[in-house]
Amino acid sequence: MDFKQILESSYREILRRYIEESSEAALYQGQMFSRKSIKQQISPEEIISIHCKVLKDLYPDIREEILASFDFLIEFMMNYGLAYQEHQSLRDKQF
Amino acid sequence: MDFKQILESSYREILRRYIEESSEAALYQGQMFSRKSIKQQISPEEIISIHCKVLKDLYPDIREEILASFDFLIEFMMNYGLAYQEHQSLRDKQF
Repeated sequence: MDFKQILESSYREILRRYIEESSEAALYQGQMFSRKSIKQQISPEEIISIHCKVLKDLYPDIREEILASFDFLIEFMMNYGLAYQEHQSLRDKQF
Repeated sequence: MDFKQILESSYREILRRYIEESSEAALYQGQMFSRKSIKQQISPEEIISIHCKVLKDLYPDIREEILASFDFLIEFMMNYGLAYQEHQSLRDKQF
């Protein structure tokens, strides 16, 4: 299983737990996972895409407009992903 | 009106239009706005927070679990925001 598959299944599990229990522990686990995701060069728009997929799985009756809104958010976030890639290549040149 | 207020009202307007019309033009406008947001040092988690607020305004009956999921996504995205801040300070030192 590659990191993206691990990320997706872990994200699903931690988010489900957060929604059910509103637990700080799940938030903390999410933060730990986000550090790993950054190290593995997962872009912010990929995270949002996973988030949307998980919501669709957990709530199959989620309204279409909400799902459509995620397409917009993903497009909006792409420039943030590019800015972060630039950051990484800049850092790689420095060290 | 400061940039965050402009961003919020523009984001609401463009997202509403995208959901209603599924238009490429709205996606494009979103991308233009995301570049401005990056320049104005708006973090990715702030964008997600605005997205959630706009959905709540547009769909007051949105289920609580979906809103709660955004709190998780915002926390998850905070490390991406920090990584981007780091990028900016690194760039400021270089130029």
